[in-house]
Amino acid sequence: MQQQRTHVVIIGGGFAGLYAAQALARQPVQVTLVDRKNHHTFQPLLYQVATAALSPADIASPIRGILRQYRNVNVLLGEAAGFDLAARRVRLKEGPDLGYDYLIVAAGAGHAYFGHDEWAPLAPGLKTLEDALEIRRRVLLAYELAERRAAAGGETEPLNFVIVGAGPTGVELAGALAEIAHQALVRDFRAIDPTQARIVLLEGGPRVLPSYPENLSRSAEAQLRKLSVEVRTSTLVTAVEPGAVRLGDEVLPASVALWAAGVKASPLGAMLGVPTDGAGRVFVEPDLSIPGHKEVFVIGDLAAAKDEKGNFLPGIAPVAVQQGRAVARAVVRDREKKPRQNFVYLNKGSLATIGRAAAVADLPGGLRLSGLIAWLAWLFVHIFFLIGFRNRVLVMIQWAWAYLTFQRGTRLITGSTERSDGSGPAA
Amino acid sequence: MQQQRTHVVIIGGGFAGLYAAQALARQPVQVTLVDRKNHHTFQPLLYQVATAALSPADIASPIRGILRQYRNVNVLLGEAAGFDLAARRVRLKEGPDLGYDYLIVAAGAGHAYFGHDEWAPLAPGLKTLEDALEIRRRVLLAYELAERRAAAGGETEPLNFVIVGAGPTGVELAGALAEIAHQALVRDFRAIDPTQARIVLLEGGPRVLPSYPENLSRSAEAQLRKLSVEVRTSTLVTAVEPGAVRLGDEVLPASVALWAAGVKASPLGAMLGVPTDGAGRVFVEPDLSIPGHKEVFVIGDLAAAKDEKGNFLPGIAPVAVQQGRAVARAVVRDREKKPRQNFVYLNKGSLATIGRAAAVADLPGGLRLSGLIAWLAWLFVHIFFLIGFRNRVLVMIQWAWAYLTFQRGTRLITGSTERSDGSGPAA
Repeated sequence: MQQQRTHVVIIGGGFAGLYAAQALARQPVQVTLVDRKNHHTFQPLLYQVATAALSPADIASPIRGILRQYRNVNVLLGEAAGFDLAARRVRLKEGPDLGYDYLIVAAGAGHAYFGHDEWAPLAPGLKTLEDALEIRRRVLLAYELAERRAAAGGETEPLNFVIVGAGPTGVELAGALAEIAHQALVRDFRAIDPTQARIVLLEGGPRVLPSYPENLSRSAEAQLRKLSVEVRTSTLVTAVEPGAVRLGDEVLPASVALWAAGVKASPLGAMLGVPTDGAGRVFVEPDLSIPGHKEVFVIGDLAAAKDEKGNFLPGIAPVAVQQGRAVARAVVRDREKKPRQNFVYLNKGSLATIGRAAAVADLPGGLRLSGLIAWLAWLFVHIFFLIGFRNRVLVMIQWAWAYLTFQRGTRLITGSTERSDGSGPAA
Repeated sequence: MQQQRTHVVIIGGGFAGLYAAQALARQPVQVTLVDRKNHHTFQPLLYQVATAALSPADIASPIRGILRQYRNVNVLLGEAAGFDLAARRVRLKEGPDLGYDYLIVAAGAGHAYFGHDEWAPLAPGLKTLEDALEIRRRVLLAYELAERRAAAGGETEPLNFVIVGAGPTGVELAGALAEIAHQALVRDFRAIDPTQARIVLLEGGPRVLPSYPENLSRSAEAQLRKLSVEVRTSTLVTAVEPGAVRLGDEVLPASVALWAAGVKASPLGAMLGVPTDGAGRVFVEPDLSIPGHKEVFVIGDLAAAKDEKGNFLPGIAPVAVQQGRAVARAVVRDREKKPRQNFVYLNKGSLATIGRAAAVADLPGGLRLSGLIAWLAWLFVHIFFLIGFRNRVLVMIQWAWAYLTFQRGTRLITGSTERSDGSGPAA
């Protein structure tokens, strides 16, 4: 049965892969979705795990559970290690090859450290639940170690949190860290004053949220400053060291440094043997297939796809979702002997949150919002798209709790409570 | 100010230490609570984290947050490394000594592997959030790896989960693992049948729940068998190996082995230089102080304290809570120049849960319950004593969700998805 049906293999259970699988459910094809993790992560809320507002299970669900009702969809925990496009086979790191009729590669992206991979342990990025828990651990531990040092009569120099990169993730992290310092922890410590903590947001370009219209960037920067975040634009990081970030001649102390600056596509893109851009993203055809292989699609953050004006599409969830659905449609149309359609991205707008009742929204038709109304739009959209009714209820309760009490509910340090590599001088 | 007041140092933020700190709050003393973790863990529900029913943050709270409103209580993240009882100082592993007028040692207990510490990585126990997450990872990964092997056309021998020790924790783990196999995962897999998984509960003594009355042990065993758990009493483990547990000549396959058999008190007990029992617990005086040092108390799982009949008290939460409050009273009475009172344990009964609507309760006055009514009592007591209103609400919602859907909400594998040491042959 399985062998006779058209077999679609999907690599990656992020937004792109998951929505492709759902769109192929109950179609007369057999689907196998392979992911290195057993769960889909709702990445837009990952920073809330990193900043102790939500638990991992609130924003992640087992892929197997999401797809359980679709009997034509199999899920495998595994890691793609290479392709044989001629033989139409995917090689898995553990276990045998997987044959396919169609291949959808949606392996996503990781962090780019501008050729300085040695900075990675010193300034972790935020792509996975593990990343988020590591950031949470470092941030909470910095306060604990400072309190211990101060209680022992030591010097009490203020904590410094440095975020490199002022895209949406950097802005969200900076805003949340400021709220932790000024609201959540304010009565928790005896020897240190958390409100003295310095939150510095560094951006190489001339403004925060570079992909947004200029007036929204200005609004976001004003909202960040209101939260006591120091915003420094046109500032290039020249080195990350244990306890400090170097900006040319200036040494900026960093109890904790976080990386939200660069993105590097999964190495699986290059393994397809077709041209990629500087970040390793695969140049795709208008139907999202790769040159010379109509049966192989690349979608999501791994794809360098263009909109109708010839601009490359950003690596955001709505693009991935629409691409996932589009390639599923292409497979179905092939089977129905209908011509494929080119992928057209329907821009529904962008939202970035900054803090409590602080956000910016860039909506279609030139509608631009900021402040409370943008924040309410952000809340609504994120609850709406979060996977699972249970998760939606739990997240709403926790947001309501946090809103009413100014508290963050998941301030747990799990893992080592020793100083980690590069978490700074707060030992 | 701090130096002039009587200074009480508490080592450990479990039930004993935390309730001692709360009972000393707003008294005219200065309190410093030291713990290696930043959070109090509600240990009675730890098995629900290990079996993917609850998130870590549902059953753990930052100690600093719990005690924030008590201005005379300081919390320090740190590890006690030794004592100078003559000078009345605690040595911390990192940082300087802490001087005290009163010392309350409530450092708890870990696992005992009967002199075979090499079994620990092969069969993890359940004392911390990290333990719980590791067990969850191993259990979920065993299913994933079996599915991958079976999907690749390999042999599909059933999974084997072996739990060593049938005290309350072992019984709870066995019941929960049976429910995962028979209910939560039943429609999730395509190549394997989770209901074929074998759950084996091993007990060295003649019956499960040895500390309960015999008829409740019989009831618990019957309820376990109804959940398809294989119960084997009077069975001694002679070795734990990768993928198997040895019972004399018999080799029992174990995709995952879990340890719930023995307890070993914190090594801090022995560092006090007073007599301890075989498990390292400190023999305490009737007022819970140690011989020769009225200003030093040992409470909770680290103490070998007796009830009025001369029987040693078990290492359970109600004993720890009552002891914590008792030593706080002793400190206050000393200051008021009143004589101390001997500690008397007020037995409010024991509850052990087995599964959905399955539990046993041994209540004062010879009242013994089992089945649904014991389970409802268990639910009520655990919600009631869980720390934090937010946690209570979240746990109730998740229990209701699990009850209605038979689902477990936190089936996340975080950390490595590679085979771990000794997690069995399911590679």
